Amino acid sequence: MSYLFIKNANELLTVAGSSSSPAVREQMNELSIIEDGAVWIENDRIVETGTTPDLEKKYADKLRQAQVIDAKGKVVAPGLVDPHTHLVFAGSRENEYNMRLQGAKYMDIMEQGGGIHATTRATRKASFEQLYNESRPRLDSFLKHGVTTVEAKSGYGMDWEVEKRQMEVAKKLGEDHIVDVVGTFMGAHVIAEEYKDDPEAFVDIVVNDMIPAAAESGLAEFNDVFCERGVYTPDQSRRILEAGREHGLLPKIHADEIEPYGGAEIAAEVGAVSADHLLKVSDQGLKMMAEKGVVAVLLPGTAFFLMTEAADGRKAIDAGVPVALSTDRNPGSSPSTSMPFMMNLASLTMGMTPAEAITASTINAAHAIRRGETIGSIEAGKQADLVIWNIPNHLQFTYLYGINHTATVIKRGRIAFDNGVIV
Amino acid sequence: MSYLFIKNANELLTVAGSSSSPAVREQMNELSIIEDGAVWIENDRIVETGTTPDLEKKYADKLRQAQVIDAKGKVVAPGLVDPHTHLVFAGSRENEYNMRLQGAKYMDIMEQGGGIHATTRATRKASFEQLYNESRPRLDSFLKHGVTTVEAKSGYGMDWEVEKRQMEVAKKLGEDHIVDVVGTFMGAHVIAEEYKDDPEAFVDIVVNDMIPAAAESGLAEFNDVFCERGVYTPDQSRRILEAGREHGLLPKIHADEIEPYGGAEIAAEVGAVSADHLLKVSDQGLKMMAEKGVVAVLLPGTAFFLMTEAADGRKAIDAGVPVALSTDRNPGSSPSTSMPFMMNLASLTMGMTPAEAITASTINAAHAIRRGETIGSIEAGKQADLVIWNIPNHLQFTYLYGINHTATVIKRGRIAFDNGVIV
Ligand SMILES: [Zn+2]
Ligand SMILES: [Zn+2]
Repeated sequence: MSYLFIKNANELLTVAGSSSSPAVREQMNELSIIEDGAVWIENDRIVETGTTPDLEKKYADKLRQAQVIDAKGKVVAPGLVDPHTHLVFAGSRENEYNMRLQGAKYMDIMEQGGGIHATTRATRKASFEQLYNESRPRLDSFLKHGVTTVEAKSGYGMDWEVEKRQMEVAKKLGEDHIVDVVGTFMGAHVIAEEYKDDPEAFVDIVVNDMIPAAAESGLAEFNDVFCERGVYTPDQSRRILEAGREHGLLPKIHADEIEPYGGAEIAAEVGAVSADHLLKVSDQGLKMMAEKGVVAVLLPGTAFFLMTEAADGRKAIDAGVPVALSTDRNPGSSPSTSMPFMMNLASLTMGMTPAEAITASTINAAHAIRRGETIGSIEAGKQADLVIWNIPNHLQFTYLYGINHTATVIKRGRIAFDNGVIV
Repeated sequence: MSYLFIKNANELLTVAGSSSSPAVREQMNELSIIEDGAVWIENDRIVETGTTPDLEKKYADKLRQAQVIDAKGKVVAPGLVDPHTHLVFAGSRENEYNMRLQGAKYMDIMEQGGGIHATTRATRKASFEQLYNESRPRLDSFLKHGVTTVEAKSGYGMDWEVEKRQMEVAKKLGEDHIVDVVGTFMGAHVIAEEYKDDPEAFVDIVVNDMIPAAAESGLAEFNDVFCERGVYTPDQSRRILEAGREHGLLPKIHADEIEPYGGAEIAAEVGAVSADHLLKVSDQGLKMMAEKGVVAVLLPGTAFFLMTEAADGRKAIDAGVPVALSTDRNPGSSPSTSMPFMMNLASLTMGMTPAEAITASTINAAHAIRRGETIGSIEAGKQADLVIWNIPNHLQFTYLYGINHTATVIKRGRIAFDNGVIV
C-alpha cells in the first residue's frame, strides 16, 4: 500500500455531489470548497477529504509512511477532463492559418489542397508509428495543462483500415502514457472524397461495415457523427447513431455548429451522451437536451480560432442543460491543448462564471464521456486524479488570464507532472 | 570572455533591419529568417548571426571554450519586450472580475469600493517590501513567457511619496531580477480622489511638483498620462506631457480607449514615443502618428478581458503606423503576463499576421521604450536577449494557440530560464 497525503490547500475544490448525474444550473456554481483542505490517497484511490488538522489526526499512524505534498497557498482541484478531441492525426496546418489571416477564404484554402481533406490524406498515408509519434507530444501538452483524461476520436481515415489504425494508436497512447485516453469511433466525420456524389453509399458503409467492426474491435465506447448541412443530414445522422447504439456504441454528435440543423433534437431523441458545438442550437433543442440530461460539450476555442461568435454557455446553463468544456484539439479549427484557456474563454466569451467553468471541465466533462462515477471530482472511492494550481484561490485561475497555472498533476495517486517537468 | 553558441535553429528570426527606426507596413511582415541558423555570442553581446556551418567554421578555434545550445527543431527569436505595464502595485481584484461575470456593472463595483481606487488604496498602504514582494513574481512570470524587458509605470500613488516608492520598487526589481525594467512616471493616471472636485489643482501638483521631482530622481525616462473623458482632458494631457518633456521625460499617452478624444493627435503634436490603447483612434490621429513615427502600443488583452472589441491593428499598420504589442499588466483590466497570448489576440482579434505580431513584440516594442538600437532584434552588437521556442516554425507559435511555447530564455548572454525552471 502506498500513501499520498496532500495538505494545507488554501482551497480544496472537491466539486463533490454530482457523481451520479451531471451538475446543472446552480449546482454548476457549487465547488464544495474545503479551506485548509487535505486529501488522503491510498494507491490510486481517494480515501478521504477534509481539513488538514482533521486528516492529520485521523491518519496519524500512517503519516510517516506517506508521501506528503504541501499545497500551502495553492488550490487543489480535480484533474481536468477533455471530452472531445481529434487527438490522432498526421501533419499540421499552420500555413492555412497564416493564409486565413492574410484574407484567404476557406474555399481558397480547400482549392489549394487544404482543409480537412489535407489531414485525411496525411493520416491515410501515415504508419502506426508515425501517427503515434506525432500524437504523443499532444498528450504531454495536455498533461502540462492539468488534463488527466482525454477522449480521442477517429475520423481522418474514411476507410475502416485507417479508422482502426487511428483508434489503435489512441488505445496504445492511453496504455503507454499516464493520461487516460477514451476512444470514440467517428467514421462519419466527413463524406469520403470518393463518395461525394453518392453520400448514401458511404453512409451504408459506415452503418453496415464500419460500425459493427468498430464495436467488435473493442477500440471505441462512443460513436460520433458530424451533423451539418453538406456533411451528414439529420436523417443520416440518426441512422448512424442508432446503428452504433444497436452495437453498444453510445451516441455523441457534432451538432448545430454552422446553422440550426436539428442536431440537439436528434441527440435528445437517440439518448446521446453529449451533443457538441451547439453554436446555433435552437431553444427547442436546448429544452430537449435538458429533459434528457444530454451534456452540452462547448468548444469556445474553435470559435475563437475561427473568429466567430462562441456558443451561448450562459443560456444553456440557464436552460438546465449540463455544460462541459473541451479543446476540440484538431489541426484545422482548434490546434490548442489548453483546457485552462478554454476556461478563460468560457467566462469571457460564453458568460460562464469561473466556478461554472471549473465544473464544466471536471465532473461534467467526466459525465460527457460516461466517467462521472470514477473521475471528475475529489471524493472517497474515486480515482486519485488531481491538479495543484499555483494560485491562492480558484478565481485567480482565469482572472490571471492566458496563463497556465498548473503546478503539479497527480494521476492515479502518483505525481505525473511537477514544476514544469513531466515526471 | 565567455562564449555562447546557439546552433541548428530550424528558423532563426533575426528581425533585422529596423534598429534605427521602427518597422512599418510590409517591413512588419519581414522577419529576416535564417534557416539552420546560428548565433555567436560573446559575454552579453551578439557578435554574429549566420547559418550553422558558416559560424561553426568561422569560430572553430573558440568553439571548444563555448557553451553550446542545440536548437534543433526549434525557433530562435529576439527576447520579447513588453512596453506597457503597471507592474508595481498591491492587492488583487479577482472578486471584481467574478462580480462582473455575474452581471455587475463597473459602477456597482466602484460603489462596493472596487475599481482603480481599490488598487490605489492598497498601494498607498503598502511598504516598499510589500510592493517588492507582490510584484517580483510578476517578473518571474514575464520571464517564463519569453519576456526579457518590461516597462513599468507608477500611477497608483497619487502623491509623490507613493509614486516615488513605486518607481523605486521598479528600479530595484530591475537591478535584482534578470528581466530589465524601464521606468515611466505616471502621476496623471487618475485624478486623486481628494481632488475630484478640483482636478486642475491636481494637474498643477503633477506639473509643478511631481514631474520635476520625478525627473530629478532619475527613476523614470518617460512621462505618461491617461487622456480620456472624465480623467485628463486633451488640454490637461498636453500640458502634462509638455511639462515632462521640458524636464527630459519623454512623452507617452493612454489615448482614445473609450471614445475618439484626440489622444493620438496630441501624441503626434508633442512628439510622443508612443500612444497606447487606441481602440477608438480617429483616421486623422493615425495619419498624424504615421507622419511622426509615433509607435502605436496595442493592448488586445485589455479588450479581451473587458469583453470589448479590440483596436484595429490591421488598419493602423496599413496606415503606416509602427505597431507594438503589450500585456498592459494591471490588476483591473488586464491581469495577464503573457506576451505570447497577446500575439494570439493580435492575429485573431486585430487582423495581424503571425509575422507582424512577432515584429510588434520585439523590435517595435523596443522602439516604444526607446531601446530599438540595443534590443529587439538579433543583430551584431546588440544585447544578447533571445528566446528559444519549442516549435519548428514561427507560424506554430500562435497557431498552437493558448499555449506558452517558451523553452529557453537567454538574457544578456546567459541562460535565465530553461525547461520550465528559472535558472
Ligand atoms: Zn470535433
Ligand atoms: Zn495602462
